[in-house]
Amino acid sequence: MPIIREFQEADWPRIWPILHEVFESGESYPQPPGTTEEEARRYWLEEPAASFVAVEDDGTISGTYYIKPNQPGLGSHVCNCGYMVAKDHRGKGVACAMCEHSQEKAVEMGFRAMQYNLVVATNEASVRLWRKMDFEEVGTLPGAFRHKRLGYVDAYVMYKELV
Amino acid sequence: MPIIREFQEADWPRIWPILHEVFESGESYPQPPGTTEEEARRYWLEEPAASFVAVEDDGTISGTYYIKPNQPGLGSHVCNCGYMVAKDHRGKGVACAMCEHSQEKAVEMGFRAMQYNLVVATNEASVRLWRKMDFEEVGTLPGAFRHKRLGYVDAYVMYKELV
Repeated sequence: MPIIREFQEADWPRIWPILHEVFESGESYPQPPGTTEEEARRYWLEEPAASFVAVEDDGTISGTYYIKPNQPGLGSHVCNCGYMVAKDHRGKGVACAMCEHSQEKAVEMGFRAMQYNLVVATNEASVRLWRKMDFEEVGTLPGAFRHKRLGYVDAYVMYKELV
Repeated sequence: MPIIREFQEADWPRIWPILHEVFESGESYPQPPGTTEEEARRYWLEEPAASFVAVEDDGTISGTYYIKPNQPGLGSHVCNCGYMVAKDHRGKGVACAMCEHSQEKAVEMGFRAMQYNLVVATNEASVRLWRKMDFEEVGTLPGAFRHKRLGYVDAYVMYKELV
């Protein structure tokens, strides 16, 4: 399993290709194909409270995630996270390791729950993983995601209480 | 019923007290007590795509709302709105009029659905109104709102397809 540690500035040139590939696919994140490196930096590094990377034994960065409050003020005790795994490292438990790490970090940072706002229903690997990690499907947002290949598809709101 | 028109800069001194009172109550919006005028302006006027005011026959501003995309890019066809009614004008249908107006505007602006992300469960007047306006309760976020008087209370995600 990879070691997960806080993002360092020198990681960015290895993170950006991961984000770029995911955004270009138009299958799982609302950031659309054509999202620029500057927009990606803002979204993944500047807006979040913290960002992390998963590092394999050989030093390869296989994944990354961010954590941030999902709402300001009176909703800021619920966090939101986003996770991405590099294409060549999928199906090996990296997302699972990052999700577990993020829940520990969230508790350390004082969050009481974690919320995913837009889990694309056709992204079956993610849906299955979050269910396995005991996230509850709060409900379904009909047609809330404009999938690059499939058009309008449903998305789930998922939630897990941490304390 | 009030006339609803687009916000004009001269309206702000009459809008800010409405927002201030709602934020100070800590009962319905995540913006906490102590939110500054500058923060309120950013939230209500600068971040949204458009903001509106409800004007009574005598020129009084009785309410205001904003509309904006709820997500970037591939989620930007779903809008989010926030509504506030001045304390002295509640229970007179102003929120209902603004909600209807916002749905028409949303369709004009090309949105396909409207989503409320954090409808505080104890805010019964709002929950009742959105149900009456055919918003569907997608689901419940347990303890997602830190109510000023009541502590952690549930919030609903509500959603309505417009096309």
